[in-house]
Amino acid sequence: MAGNIERLKELDSEIQRLSHIAALLSWDQETYMPEGAVEERSEQKALLEGMIHERVTSLEMADIFSKLGISDSNAAVSGLTATDQAFLREAYRRYRLQSKLPTELVRKIAKETSLAVAKWAEAREKADFTIFSGNLETILTLVREKADALGYEEHIYDPLLDEFEPWMKTKELREVFQSVQKGLTALLSRITASGTKVESDFLKREYPVDKQRQLSLSVLKNMGYDFKFGRLDLSAHPFTITLGSTDVRLTNRYDPNFFPKGLFGTIHEGGHGLYELGIAPELHGSLLADGTSMGIHESQSRLWENFIGRSRAFWRWFYPQAKELFPAALADIDVATFYRGINRVEPSFIRVEADEVTYNLHIILRFNLERALVSGDLQVKDLPEAWNQESRELLGITPPDVSLGVLQDIHWSMGGIGYFPTYALGNLYAAQFFRILKQELPLVEAQVEGGNFSAILAWLREKIHSSGRVYTAGELCTRVTGESLNPEYYLQYLEEKYGAIYGI
Amino acid sequence: MAGNIERLKELDSEIQRLSHIAALLSWDQETYMPEGAVEERSEQKALLEGMIHERVTSLEMADIFSKLGISDSNAAVSGLTATDQAFLREAYRRYRLQSKLPTELVRKIAKETSLAVAKWAEAREKADFTIFSGNLETILTLVREKADALGYEEHIYDPLLDEFEPWMKTKELREVFQSVQKGLTALLSRITASGTKVESDFLKREYPVDKQRQLSLSVLKNMGYDFKFGRLDLSAHPFTITLGSTDVRLTNRYDPNFFPKGLFGTIHEGGHGLYELGIAPELHGSLLADGTSMGIHESQSRLWENFIGRSRAFWRWFYPQAKELFPAALADIDVATFYRGINRVEPSFIRVEADEVTYNLHIILRFNLERALVSGDLQVKDLPEAWNQESRELLGITPPDVSLGVLQDIHWSMGGIGYFPTYALGNLYAAQFFRILKQELPLVEAQVEGGNFSAILAWLREKIHSSGRVYTAGELCTRVTGESLNPEYYLQYLEEKYGAIYGI
Repeated sequence: MAGNIERLKELDSEIQRLSHIAALLSWDQETYMPEGAVEERSEQKALLEGMIHERVTSLEMADIFSKLGISDSNAAVSGLTATDQAFLREAYRRYRLQSKLPTELVRKIAKETSLAVAKWAEAREKADFTIFSGNLETILTLVREKADALGYEEHIYDPLLDEFEPWMKTKELREVFQSVQKGLTALLSRITASGTKVESDFLKREYPVDKQRQLSLSVLKNMGYDFKFGRLDLSAHPFTITLGSTDVRLTNRYDPNFFPKGLFGTIHEGGHGLYELGIAPELHGSLLADGTSMGIHESQSRLWENFIGRSRAFWRWFYPQAKELFPAALADIDVATFYRGINRVEPSFIRVEADEVTYNLHIILRFNLERALVSGDLQVKDLPEAWNQESRELLGITPPDVSLGVLQDIHWSMGGIGYFPTYALGNLYAAQFFRILKQELPLVEAQVEGGNFSAILAWLREKIHSSGRVYTAGELCTRVTGESLNPEYYLQYLEEKYGAIYGI
Repeated sequence: MAGNIERLKELDSEIQRLSHIAALLSWDQETYMPEGAVEERSEQKALLEGMIHERVTSLEMADIFSKLGISDSNAAVSGLTATDQAFLREAYRRYRLQSKLPTELVRKIAKETSLAVAKWAEAREKADFTIFSGNLETILTLVREKADALGYEEHIYDPLLDEFEPWMKTKELREVFQSVQKGLTALLSRITASGTKVESDFLKREYPVDKQRQLSLSVLKNMGYDFKFGRLDLSAHPFTITLGSTDVRLTNRYDPNFFPKGLFGTIHEGGHGLYELGIAPELHGSLLADGTSMGIHESQSRLWENFIGRSRAFWRWFYPQAKELFPAALADIDVATFYRGINRVEPSFIRVEADEVTYNLHIILRFNLERALVSGDLQVKDLPEAWNQESRELLGITPPDVSLGVLQDIHWSMGGIGYFPTYALGNLYAAQFFRILKQELPLVEAQVEGGNFSAILAWLREKIHSSGRVYTAGELCTRVTGESLNPEYYLQYLEEKYGAIYGI
């Protein structure tokens, strides 16, 4: 048995290395690659992806699992350490997912989504849903085929969700989102009814990009992001990417006329980066050296971005630095006004610009529509109206056109159905973790106010980062907080923070 | 037969793609990679190199060559196009070179050179040859083993030279270098005896690095280097690297107190880059999409750097741009003084700082010592004195210590014996090509003076770049110039140029 597991680790180590190389190809493409190289680069990526797929689904791999007695119905081998058990669980999961998908289907999805992304962009540009609707129908057909190939017991949405949030079920998520929705819509009504006005126009003044970058580098250093093992570059959309256990890079972009975009983008990506860089050395080079789910990953970025970065304590420390870099823009703004401005709540059309209170409602809207589309309860032709209907119910507003409504996000055109919920899960997990963090580190607020994040980072490393994928998201949540995912803590956090801001 | 060649092309295409991916790993390491990632990166590179080696020496590859009747004694298959014949010649050459070297020897060389580079750096730093001499002895032993494994008929130096300058023989090179040496030492004596003083101190004034970069970008654009398919970045040592037929990148570095380093480095790398970007599309993705030898590659960088970049016509066009960017440093310098300054001739210790007249003497010195070391005629312990002896004979000067003498170059510590001659060959080929270029483009001087390089680039593309590796260096030279390598043209070029500058 030991020999089989050792061999599996060898095979996995090569797969990891190839994946890290593939990550460099992607990072380079988004940052420095000359534009004329795009076609050749996609061939290089396809070659590596093919090699990875070949290795993940190889006969030797299958043979080892069979010798170990692992199958769809049994993923456990007795007498192993927790880490080796997790390694087998994740290695088999990867094998199962990749070997169940017919090559022809994977090829079709790649082809159709590549066409659909272009059509989606055109449709959004022209605010004309009919340009994209045919492509979306094709994608839904293929996504259903994918779900069927992967298999499911309860809901066709289960295998799609599982791709991004392993081991999470649609049923559980629905229940969680139902209480989130109830709590958020109630809080939003009270905020709207309060009549409190929050000033935020000053965030749209002149913020020179080079100074914004300086501020971003400063905050990353304070957070404990180590530039010996990373970088911060420019790209069209911010992302974090792992090129190895010793090389985790961030990207961001800056808007010279909107302050929050750059800085909070940096803090967000910094949170992802710290997770990846905090994984225990003994897991390095294996498939366990990764975030355990996208929801947990997002909890780390949101915890830094919102729970710390948008807190009053943070700005008591950081505001002088910002004011020094932007003396003109912030001359007449005191820290209290600034804090309220970056936390202004208002229902809006675009998800990525939403505040903490309305954000999860945008996700619930998409989750509802995705399930209905995949199960066939909703037809693509009826989608724009269904979107507007959900928007009225959840946010109380109707998008004036499809570019501000159903066409705002790229995800569906890429076949990424099942992805959106992980954003909301990130907020919920973050609140649940942060509550325990504050209990265990009672001085955290004073530390943040002093610009000292080392205790926070040490706590996150010990409790969350270091274990990588050893525990599933659910297991990790229970280990850290003593209970499974509970959305009440997010609602409590919002209640307290926004109650104070809006005087309710 | 056609089927076998097609299959060989498929196999080759994957090898090329892997090599381009490996090139990205190297480029990134030299430019943007975080320092802490160095160990993991070397593992990633080793993995890719192993995969490439596996493919180059695969049983299937061997089988195809055997079916085609190709062997060490017969590389020709009748009834093929010139391109396919060249493809087979180069594919078999690669197979032969890689399959003849025992894996154990390759591993040993990698290990010993990695140790030796560190020792060499220490020895140079401390100007103490004995720190490095043991490593050099080990390397020479391994290099001799390598030469024996590769096989040779005449001289043990042949297979070493062939690694960098395919199909070139030691005997031919010796004869060429003998007449070069004779001509150069004679010219150098007359220059020294002329008593003419050339001012060049102004090149060491303040030249802000950002302005130098601006000038570099400007000259590259004029040369016809297309930034849609390339970039110019910073690195410790300048280099050109091919990440694909549509992605050829340059790097450079700037000295704020020495003007020529940055600009001529850029023009030099630009020449390499234009070669790689000028290869005909029908060769893209195959092993023929490459420079045909290092000597020919160097001829393209030297032609642009020296024959154009250090010409009077070039500076008549370019000097106003330089003067505008460096008004303080160049205020009192007219274009004639500037031209003479960048072409000052003086025997010096360091090869990379040498002028056009003495440069090839530095190479001949190394070529003489390399042959003697490899054949066993010279012992490592006697090397420093032999170096000084050669230096006196060729350049008329004795290095004051080994850091300015035998320890100045990294090449031997890396096992790169046989590499130096290609630098000199570059100068010789450049002169031979440039002479024909001027005959066929009689207006070339006026075009350079107008900053218009399009006819030059078109000529180089048609005559040299487009054919990639289809012709060997020798074949190419004969096709373009009507005769084989003839060092007289280099001597004539120097005679004319430096005769005018030094009034001899």
